[in-house]
Amino acid sequence: MNSPLRLSLADKTKSVQRQCERFLNTQVAGHQPADYHLKTGGSRTRMNICIDASLSLGLSDSDAVRLSASIELMHNASLVHDDIQDHDPMRRGMETVWSKFGHNVAICTGDYLITKAFGSLASVSCSGALPLLLEEMQQAVSETIYGQLEDLITKEVKSAKQYEQIAAKKAGPLLYLPLVLPLVASNETVSVSIAKRSATNFAVAYQILDDLSDSVDDGSKSRPNLLNFYKQHNDPSTAYKLTVQRARYLLKSCERDFGKLPNDCAAGFLNKTVYLLGELERHTHESSNQ
Amino acid sequence: MNSPLRLSLADKTKSVQRQCERFLNTQVAGHQPADYHLKTGGSRTRMNICIDASLSLGLSDSDAVRLSASIELMHNASLVHDDIQDHDPMRRGMETVWSKFGHNVAICTGDYLITKAFGSLASVSCSGALPLLLEEMQQAVSETIYGQLEDLITKEVKSAKQYEQIAAKKAGPLLYLPLVLPLVASNETVSVSIAKRSATNFAVAYQILDDLSDSVDDGSKSRPNLLNFYKQHNDPSTAYKLTVQRARYLLKSCERDFGKLPNDCAAGFLNKTVYLLGELERHTHESSNQ
Repeated sequence: MNSPLRLSLADKTKSVQRQCERFLNTQVAGHQPADYHLKTGGSRTRMNICIDASLSLGLSDSDAVRLSASIELMHNASLVHDDIQDHDPMRRGMETVWSKFGHNVAICTGDYLITKAFGSLASVSCSGALPLLLEEMQQAVSETIYGQLEDLITKEVKSAKQYEQIAAKKAGPLLYLPLVLPLVASNETVSVSIAKRSATNFAVAYQILDDLSDSVDDGSKSRPNLLNFYKQHNDPSTAYKLTVQRARYLLKSCERDFGKLPNDCAAGFLNKTVYLLGELERHTHESSNQ
Repeated sequence: MNSPLRLSLADKTKSVQRQCERFLNTQVAGHQPADYHLKTGGSRTRMNICIDASLSLGLSDSDAVRLSASIELMHNASLVHDDIQDHDPMRRGMETVWSKFGHNVAICTGDYLITKAFGSLASVSCSGALPLLLEEMQQAVSETIYGQLEDLITKEVKSAKQYEQIAAKKAGPLLYLPLVLPLVASNETVSVSIAKRSATNFAVAYQILDDLSDSVDDGSKSRPNLLNFYKQHNDPSTAYKLTVQRARYLLKSCERDFGKLPNDCAAGFLNKTVYLLGELERHTHESSNQ
């Protein structure tokens, strides 16, 4: 028999992922550029982390869908507007929205996705938690925008701390929301601060790993890059080592913190942390073989 | 004595307007471009209509402030992004945000104001109404964006009906929200559809009146303009008459509908309707004297 009660957690997760994809489709139905953008794919990282966290915290499928879709829509809104700002013509192997439909349409498309992200929260069944869900969402998005603004105006990184502050603001909030919203919806607000700290550290570590691969490209575009910053004050090998060390330190701290969250709700993040630690080892070997 | 209880409604309104201005300031504190934009002024039409409606429907000062600020922030978000799209360098006698801070900062600023608009709803005391408030807000903003997209892609208006549909979508929702949110917050949802219809008709009439003044400028920029549309199929005097007639018909219909709403909550709109009917008379005289 294949009754809902007998489905394993993995099957249940897959079912909610499908429901969430359908919900995303309904949110952009009739809005061609937003629909086009969502259909370019993407890893749905934030959506899937939020689904894992929601289900492990005992939220209903329907609430898991709405919280996860809300974050995924907001993340995609930020991509559509970022692509205009960075003049990136391609994303995920396809034309970006501004490149295909023009700047003006892309501005509207990002606005539309932000609106639908907030709107998706309206229909959660745990409506008693709605004020706090909405407040956490607006704080997170405001913080992301501050980070984006700092990123736009920062021509030169002056310290490793400054680099991390910008990365934390720009990428942290949309990575901690997939934990924070389910924690709030399930009345586990006491764990919110650990969730924010750990997911923000993860975001910074992820960015640093990106920097290891993108240092040439970032250098040519004067984008903040920790490896390039360290190279200004150290020989290349030391710079590489310092960069890898910092990422490892942050990921190790994530590993401990994610484990403290209730009901293994950050299991999705933990898997990714372990994977990234493996990637770092690879980088370290490459570095020592250079 | 000047105790709060003895304050007249007009004094109370003024007090709430001041509270609302202070609340707007706190929402953009620390975000220089958003703060700059709000300080350029503006008539605060939507905010003031919403304060009138909220107080007449018996909402608390605090809820009146949050609903009204939410709409005013959303309206200003739309202005910041519209100005980028229309390449308008000036607004209210001052540089527009994109013109002063650049396109990228202006995109972030609009996003920030949208976020703060939704966030302002989080702290209403009538939290039982929050799901519906949020849903009405997201529907209204989505509709506005559809209108803006149609406006952007419409090179030529093909019928008076098409013209009105675009104007209704683009400007209607952010003018009906100042009535709809207080109606929802005070459980007067039965009146929501009349509020939407009447405020949308008002928005279209207002746009038509604008067209009478801006026909030359709109014509040179190929912007939709009802007078210019009628001129394509009629002599100038008939076109003028048809345009004025349509605006008058819509305003008369508003006048009736606004009066049907509970507790005179659309008194602010009614005053403006009467004023615009007077403006139309002036236009009619000018036309007959030409």
